[in-house]
Amino acid sequence: MTRFTAVDIIHQKRAGQPLSAAQIDWIVHAFTTGEVADEQMAALAMAIYFQGMEIAEIAQWTSAMIASGDTMDFSTLENPTVDKHSTGGVGDNITLMLAPLVAVFDVAVPQLSGRGLGHTGGTLDKLEAIPGWRATLTTAEMLTQLGQIGAVICAAGAGLAPADKKLYALRDITGTVDAVALIASSIMSKKIAEGTGALVLDVKVGAGAFMKTPERARELAETMCELGRQANLPTTALLTDMSQPLGSAAGNALEVATAVEILAGGGPADTRQLTIELAQEMLRLAGKTDVDVAAALDDGRAMDKWRAMIAAQGGDADAPLPKARHRHTITAPTSGYISQLDALAVGEAAWRLGAGRAKPGDAIQAEAGVQIHAKVGDYLRAGSALFTLHTQTPERFESAIARLHEAVNITDTAPPPAVLIHERIRR
Amino acid sequence: MTRFTAVDIIHQKRAGQPLSAAQIDWIVHAFTTGEVADEQMAALAMAIYFQGMEIAEIAQWTSAMIASGDTMDFSTLENPTVDKHSTGGVGDNITLMLAPLVAVFDVAVPQLSGRGLGHTGGTLDKLEAIPGWRATLTTAEMLTQLGQIGAVICAAGAGLAPADKKLYALRDITGTVDAVALIASSIMSKKIAEGTGALVLDVKVGAGAFMKTPERARELAETMCELGRQANLPTTALLTDMSQPLGSAAGNALEVATAVEILAGGGPADTRQLTIELAQEMLRLAGKTDVDVAAALDDGRAMDKWRAMIAAQGGDADAPLPKARHRHTITAPTSGYISQLDALAVGEAAWRLGAGRAKPGDAIQAEAGVQIHAKVGDYLRAGSALFTLHTQTPERFESAIARLHEAVNITDTAPPPAVLIHERIRR
Repeated sequence: MTRFTAVDIIHQKRAGQPLSAAQIDWIVHAFTTGEVADEQMAALAMAIYFQGMEIAEIAQWTSAMIASGDTMDFSTLENPTVDKHSTGGVGDNITLMLAPLVAVFDVAVPQLSGRGLGHTGGTLDKLEAIPGWRATLTTAEMLTQLGQIGAVICAAGAGLAPADKKLYALRDITGTVDAVALIASSIMSKKIAEGTGALVLDVKVGAGAFMKTPERARELAETMCELGRQANLPTTALLTDMSQPLGSAAGNALEVATAVEILAGGGPADTRQLTIELAQEMLRLAGKTDVDVAAALDDGRAMDKWRAMIAAQGGDADAPLPKARHRHTITAPTSGYISQLDALAVGEAAWRLGAGRAKPGDAIQAEAGVQIHAKVGDYLRAGSALFTLHTQTPERFESAIARLHEAVNITDTAPPPAVLIHERIRR
Repeated sequence: MTRFTAVDIIHQKRAGQPLSAAQIDWIVHAFTTGEVADEQMAALAMAIYFQGMEIAEIAQWTSAMIASGDTMDFSTLENPTVDKHSTGGVGDNITLMLAPLVAVFDVAVPQLSGRGLGHTGGTLDKLEAIPGWRATLTTAEMLTQLGQIGAVICAAGAGLAPADKKLYALRDITGTVDAVALIASSIMSKKIAEGTGALVLDVKVGAGAFMKTPERARELAETMCELGRQANLPTTALLTDMSQPLGSAAGNALEVATAVEILAGGGPADTRQLTIELAQEMLRLAGKTDVDVAAALDDGRAMDKWRAMIAAQGGDADAPLPKARHRHTITAPTSGYISQLDALAVGEAAWRLGAGRAKPGDAIQAEAGVQIHAKVGDYLRAGSALFTLHTQTPERFESAIARLHEAVNITDTAPPPAVLIHERIRR
């Protein structure tokens, strides 16, 4: 076997030259086994941040990460499978409603999810606000639930793409998260290994997202769609707005409460719209184009699926959600239109209140978070509520309030209408 | 105290923004203590490779590395002190002759040196070819020798700039060695901490050097001269050629033998010229401009200093140097002029024969190396000797011979004359 060295590979990428398939296979494998040291992979990741990778390199990198672990197979299921992945945003609880909603139409949704780190919450953290609900299923339990109910949201097993798991932890502490090649291969390696039949990507763009500009978001989305195509995984993407938070809350129990509103046919308009759009896109990929998705929210079918899905994992959908002991409301200092509502600031405020974690394994408060009473374009009178802050630990209010004071801009004239869906990418 | 995080500092440098003095002090200190992980510093080093640092940042980085350890003080000596540093090249044994030569003129030369890694040999490795010679002196022994003889070449203590020592080891395995900001601060932190009164830099340029082009070499030299100026350390630089090896040998005992030839008034012309030029520059910085340096090589005064310097550290300057049991000569395949003699290839061949080490702590062969019988511009007849290879382990010949076959180009017409000194930089 050809012998490579980490330093040669780092130098090659640093100089902007593509890596060969054999080099990529070697370094991903050697990093997983520890033969290549963390500091060497960190330097390579930073070189990749600056020099990028060609699509063939990214596809190879993705394959190498898939080959580092197990793959799953849903082909024994009667119904087609479609999954959704969001690149993460503030108030983005769409997975919670989307899985049961799509399952209404005899399409199975295997949502292998993660926990939150930083200002965007994790789907598992949100669902764990429901008394009794458990995130961990065996593969057999997951397949049974997918067959019987059609929707499952559970923890991704450690066996899928362990190289990605190790690399993501390294990127997180070395300032190398937001490289398109590394984000794309990280997401797609897990989804391809998972074995879903099709995939819809919700690529967030704006202040609260990894991708701050539509150009960067489009580059990421197109890269992932192409990786899907090369792996025979039909993949499309929506570029959706994350300049302001999605919906009316950022926090774990607070976002579950919003999900239940949506499943009851109500809830914030933007969250409902995006839920419907993503469900339609998933169903389209599963060959179901002639379906009335909104009706399933309004007539209780999606709610029934939700209750079955939660119950199957031990959760009590009727139990009251945990509520914070301490609340604080921030009001509008002047009358006017909200022209800006910074998603990052709201997310960080929720994080400061206890809704998120600074490092893996930190405890979080299910009760903590920020309720959002007005969105961009809304007209407010001075003194009416902007935000309600929730926490179990009131000493956290001060820094969260400071962050939220930076979040809002109020103007005399109405701003242009907020855009929710910037672009659809179907290769 | 202000709290920083490594990720914020990495992001800031990655975006091309300068780091503040407080950030630099914090991260160099935190890296030295281990609070900042190796993988974080590796990512920062790669970001510095791509984005560079402003001179104020490099000066602060240098100060922070000095502050990580001890400093020395030569002010009790009667004579002024001047040191020389070479960025490293193949066959560069100048330190061996330069220290005793300059000491002839009542200027003290405190050469704190290192061991070789990769294809350029270390001064201590070379001197250890002399039976009995020891590299390690206490500070008191060093000061006594400097006072009595005026020349000392010994191991730099671990106490000088330990942050640099740790960072250099990290850069070596992460492909981040050749960043101008990091090279300049590494060299200057040790020389400033050492406390020399003035400094002459020999910045090598060409295939066998870190700096492959005159532009890069000039940038490095000017950066280091400016760091010296800001630290009140008068510093000048020569840019000298490393496209072909210096002198007539690459290897430890072989280069000591060449040094003795120079000290006896003979030796290769290029090595003699560079020795004299660097000695004149050092003496000029010490205020001695009206001296005949060449005469001290020709009349035995430099040799007397050499013998005293070697004896003071336990060495026997009269003992025969170790000789390799196995030799192999490569001859010219055709008649013609040598138009190219690749320094890197010669250095790597010497390394393959056993003269160097792949990692710190590896054993080296004092006897191993390459004798160079012809230089660029020389006319050779087919069949006359180009190189003689020396090793204790003849199984190493094959790969060294292969490397040397790539080293030489022979042409029908004479090449332009080789340039030894490209530029002098005196700010």
